[in-house]
Amino acid sequence: MSRPISIRDLEATLAIKDAGSWMHDLATQLYPICRSITGNGVRETLRRVDARVALSTIEVPSGTEVLDWTVPREWNVRDAYIKNANGEKLVDFQRSNLHLVSYSTPFKGRLSFEELRPHLFTIPDWPDWIPYRTSYYAENWGFCLSHNDLKRFAEDETYEVAVDTSLCDGSLTYGEVTVPGGTSDEVLVSCHLCHPSLCNDNLSGIALATLLAAYLKHRQTRLSYRFLFIPGTIGSVTWLHKNRDRLANIKYGLVITGVGDAGKLTYKRSRRGKTEIDRAVEHVLHHRATPSQVVDFSPYGYDERQYCSPGFNLPVGRISRTPHGEYPQYHTSADNLDFISAEALRGSLEAVLQVTEVLEKDCRYLNQAPFGEPQLGRRGLYGAVGGNATQPANQMALLWVLNLSDGEHSLLDIAERSGLSFPVVRDAAQALQEKGLLAEVSLGRGAGP
Amino acid sequence: MSRPISIRDLEATLAIKDAGSWMHDLATQLYPICRSITGNGVRETLRRVDARVALSTIEVPSGTEVLDWTVPREWNVRDAYIKNANGEKLVDFQRSNLHLVSYSTPFKGRLSFEELRPHLFTIPDWPDWIPYRTSYYAENWGFCLSHNDLKRFAEDETYEVAVDTSLCDGSLTYGEVTVPGGTSDEVLVSCHLCHPSLCNDNLSGIALATLLAAYLKHRQTRLSYRFLFIPGTIGSVTWLHKNRDRLANIKYGLVITGVGDAGKLTYKRSRRGKTEIDRAVEHVLHHRATPSQVVDFSPYGYDERQYCSPGFNLPVGRISRTPHGEYPQYHTSADNLDFISAEALRGSLEAVLQVTEVLEKDCRYLNQAPFGEPQLGRRGLYGAVGGNATQPANQMALLWVLNLSDGEHSLLDIAERSGLSFPVVRDAAQALQEKGLLAEVSLGRGAGP
Amino acid sequence: MSRPISIRDLEATLAIKDAGSWMHDLATQLYPICRSITGNGVRETLRRVDARVALSTIEVPSGTEVLDWTVPREWNVRDAYIKNANGEKLVDFQRSNLHLVSYSTPFKGRLSFEELRPHLFTIPDWPDWIPYRTSYYAENWGFCLSHNDLKRFAEDETYEVAVDTSLCDGSLTYGEVTVPGGTSDEVLVSCHLCHPSLCNDNLSGIALATLLAAYLKHRQTRLSYRFLFIPGTIGSVTWLHKNRDRLANIKYGLVITGVGDAGKLTYKRSRRGKTEIDRAVEHVLHHRATPSQVVDFSPYGYDERQYCSPGFNLPVGRISRTPHGEYPQYHTSADNLDFISAEALRGSLEAVLQVTEVLEKDCRYLNQAPFGEPQLGRRGLYGAVGGNATQPANQMALLWVLNLSDGEHSLLDIAERSGLSFPVVRDAAQALQEKGLLAEVSLGRGAGP
Repeated sequence: MSRPISIRDLEATLAIKDAGSWMHDLATQLYPICRSITGNGVRETLRRVDARVALSTIEVPSGTEVLDWTVPREWNVRDAYIKNANGEKLVDFQRSNLHLVSYSTPFKGRLSFEELRPHLFTIPDWPDWIPYRTSYYAENWGFCLSHNDLKRFAEDETYEVAVDTSLCDGSLTYGEVTVPGGTSDEVLVSCHLCHPSLCNDNLSGIALATLLAAYLKHRQTRLSYRFLFIPGTIGSVTWLHKNRDRLANIKYGLVITGVGDAGKLTYKRSRRGKTEIDRAVEHVLHHRATPSQVVDFSPYGYDERQYCSPGFNLPVGRISRTPHGEYPQYHTSADNLDFISAEALRGSLEAVLQVTEVLEKDCRYLNQAPFGEPQLGRRGLYGAVGGNATQPANQMALLWVLNLSDGEHSLLDIAERSGLSFPVVRDAAQALQEKGLLAEVSLGRGAGP
Repeated sequence: MSRPISIRDLEATLAIKDAGSWMHDLATQLYPICRSITGNGVRETLRRVDARVALSTIEVPSGTEVLDWTVPREWNVRDAYIKNANGEKLVDFQRSNLHLVSYSTPFKGRLSFEELRPHLFTIPDWPDWIPYRTSYYAENWGFCLSHNDLKRFAEDETYEVAVDTSLCDGSLTYGEVTVPGGTSDEVLVSCHLCHPSLCNDNLSGIALATLLAAYLKHRQTRLSYRFLFIPGTIGSVTWLHKNRDRLANIKYGLVITGVGDAGKLTYKRSRRGKTEIDRAVEHVLHHRATPSQVVDFSPYGYDERQYCSPGFNLPVGRISRTPHGEYPQYHTSADNLDFISAEALRGSLEAVLQVTEVLEKDCRYLNQAPFGEPQLGRRGLYGAVGGNATQPANQMALLWVLNLSDGEHSLLDIAERSGLSFPVVRDAAQALQEKGLLAEVSLGRGAGP
Repeated sequence: MSRPISIRDLEATLAIKDAGSWMHDLATQLYPICRSITGNGVRETLRRVDARVALSTIEVPSGTEVLDWTVPREWNVRDAYIKNANGEKLVDFQRSNLHLVSYSTPFKGRLSFEELRPHLFTIPDWPDWIPYRTSYYAENWGFCLSHNDLKRFAEDETYEVAVDTSLCDGSLTYGEVTVPGGTSDEVLVSCHLCHPSLCNDNLSGIALATLLAAYLKHRQTRLSYRFLFIPGTIGSVTWLHKNRDRLANIKYGLVITGVGDAGKLTYKRSRRGKTEIDRAVEHVLHHRATPSQVVDFSPYGYDERQYCSPGFNLPVGRISRTPHGEYPQYHTSADNLDFISAEALRGSLEAVLQVTEVLEKDCRYLNQAPFGEPQLGRRGLYGAVGGNATQPANQMALLWVLNLSDGEHSLLDIAERSGLSFPVVRDAAQALQEKGLLAEVSLGRGAGP
């Protein structure tokens, strides 16, 4: 049996000192790039990921019909600003790419404050922060600024506005990496890369997925893994459209996003709610030393909305820390490099690796001596002097695995029922298998009911 | 889609200023009438209801065999009193019809106190109140009086007792109103009218059922409604006996009683426990602003005992406020016109109308664009500027209805799973249907498992 | 219907003044005997039980292959001690049979303290108590002593050790009593008798099982009962091996052990978890006046481990008071005659008899008048004067039994759903059956799902 998939093994395999710092460093490199759902910022981001995991970059032309949607025109920004009468730039895209509403249409002109005001977005409750706003599917332009900066505008002044963007036929770009395994059963790992300088919301997921892909490429795995680096919504819609004939292979999936903040790990169940991925993540979180939570599926959120739409209904859940919208920094300039930490990223990765280990190793065994307990003592699996009051966990695991290995229960089932952690149960099964007391059941794997 | 069934619509349709006062006024008119399980008091009560809803009055002769029972002889009262030696009436039926034990057999004679005492019923704990007692199936006579009045009797005195009643072949009387709807699927609404001057226990249910029937007669409904105004137990037994071939149409039912007191609304589940009526009432109560409770079926109570007997096992629950027997005024003279209020009656009616709206409008839809989310923005169903942290309930409802409209989930299922109220879900479904995104599934309605 | 199985009936039938004292007396007689998993101590114990219940004693030769195990050689002790240089016996088997590690191999010699120390076992936390240790399947010898006595040894002294035991081909011995009933459906009652002077752990279960068997032999029962008095693990393994063709008859089973201490009654569910025996014990414990607990199956414990191994998966639970290992006296000399009480033994027996009564009397009836309620009043089953607020439990039981006797629900189902105790429900069913309102359903008994 191969060595366990784990964060220490990852660090050893990739010769990385600290996986958390590695991910934070990658986020730092990607931070300044102006991403949107299309455009050169996406391509530049993918180039940086490609350097680490050798991904495929797919370009889908504007106007392509994808499910109920149409790939939009490609959007790029050269510059954008608002100048006052003195020629002073009160808002300047060069200082922060958040200042421009994403997908702002080109505009150049002089406007009174009254005319300009509907195009300005602030957060009065957090007067230092710049909000993040988009207008993908309604043609418009706008600027986001801190509420404090809004005070520098005067009601009776006239402003020079420049939105030097292009919105033209081009393409939507996304990245894909596959790690082939021993079977065609696939784990889908999806993260979005359509947000500009926002760290928890997009960069944390990209960094974790990149490092996970880099690691699994060095391992032999039972399952195949497919990593998607895609713009939110339109990206998953496009991918699903182009890959309908492959979806039957997807037995498990995770949307990974918002995994760098200090909050507790949160798992959002798939629409089906009790599939293997749901149970694996719940089990792993339950046994971690730090607090975590599990929430039911709802049709709002990230790309799990598309994967879990009723026509596809894939077994895809989402792993995050504090859920989007539940922290004030969400979709503001405060979701910056200080808001995410190497430590939080490392903990998130560790949990995902523990889940991967469950998916890789879960299986069903058949007890080869199911009538009564087999005599463990003569096989060297049991303490010699009897009569003690308690049994250590690894001895209990032997008994549990034997008792429940009737072909109906997987190792994860046994871990759940016994209250023992998956690794302890897995090790017991391995020891019993080595003594010929267990035989793996060939069928019966799968994504659950 | 027709306007919602609601209390405001009821008041507008019937040109009533306040539905609560209307019901309290009807109770006030019915209060003095001496009702029992048979007799002229029942007929007089039905005449007052008939004037408002045009009901059918059915007479079933004494001696008719109905299920395991026999329709009893008809009972009527001319007068009843107890006089002391001075000719003073210590107990007088003319002052309160509660003074006479219901179904007391005729008697005239002079009795010592010792002979009389076993025929006298009081409530020592509530010395001002007259209890309500019956002796339908054991031939006997008796008087109910306040415990304070009992003190006016002397141990050594002789009393003149007159029970001027008749117990003769006649008939059992009940009323029935049907409101035909678009389908033969029926909602049974049942209330009892066999109690004399008791308000919460019988008059509140009669008043609510009468006003509901009057309203639904003015509406076009999908379902048919059948209202029964019947004496308790023997009335439902009789009706079930005479209508066995109609019972298959009853898909939902409510016994309505005790809906005028100040207590919280209480729903008692049907014997089957999780049918559509059970779920509809639970959902409505859960979303009301005021506290409420749901209790499991038990075989004691009102006519749900008969509807839910194992041979019929109809999906009939019961709606009340404080359950019978859990308030001290129950079956005493304190259950009077002051014990029930227009406000409580109006709240009960409102809840019943909300339930009716669920029954009328619940159905299953099929998402016509189930692969991924349909693009709501271009259909005008979604806000134009993106990036906000939260979604309003009506936008969440659109997503929930789309996500769960796979032919397996009804609107009520979606409301339950999403935590949204039925009207919000219903409105979202209507909006989506108008845009062609939903199609109603023709089959799949019904009373549940 | 026969009189209920109960502790008062047991005491009357067997002319015993107090069943608790009877059991404590038997434990007192058995206490000095040196039992192990084989040997003359087991035979002597069975002779004492035989005198009360006329059991069969089965001898199975050493070396017999039983399931995955082999019957070990027979072990007997003549004497064992440790003497110091002065010839003083520091540890003496004649003073307590716990002093010798069970299955110690013969040894005679002089040892330094350093050589001797690995063979000595104490409990430092309880310095007055002698531990109980075994070495059944690893050839070794050892002594158990109080930690205080260990202080009498000197590091520089030499000790004379005598372990005068025999470990030879012989046999494993167990006892079996069957009480035939009206059907071949069997209740298995199993207790272990392989511990030396330990009271709660082995003698309490032997005493209870003996008295239960003695009683049931005097009763006519519907079910057959099989009592096993066996050495732990190897005994049940041996019995299962020899009786594989009989196991299909076992519909219910209880391992009885640790029933004499002052702790609350504990039921450990069978592996299947919701069979009739599980539900019967849970119901009985729930309705007892004293606290109790129910715990899930786990594969550690007493012989339920063997009965509930996946190949057999019998519906066998375990009844105890404080679970083994959760009291400090467990497997020490403090588990003595003072640790168990007549009162606790009597309470445990009472609970087991209540369970037996459920198993004997549970069945399904069919309401013969299922349409509406039958009129109980004219059959003398209902109070004559109506209108009271509450119903006594026995009247509620009549209604519950009628309502749920649709062929789907057993009396135990009805007791569970109604919250009434089994005897109240059983009496109601008997009363209704006498009036012709119920007929027993011939099929549908059984051990559950």
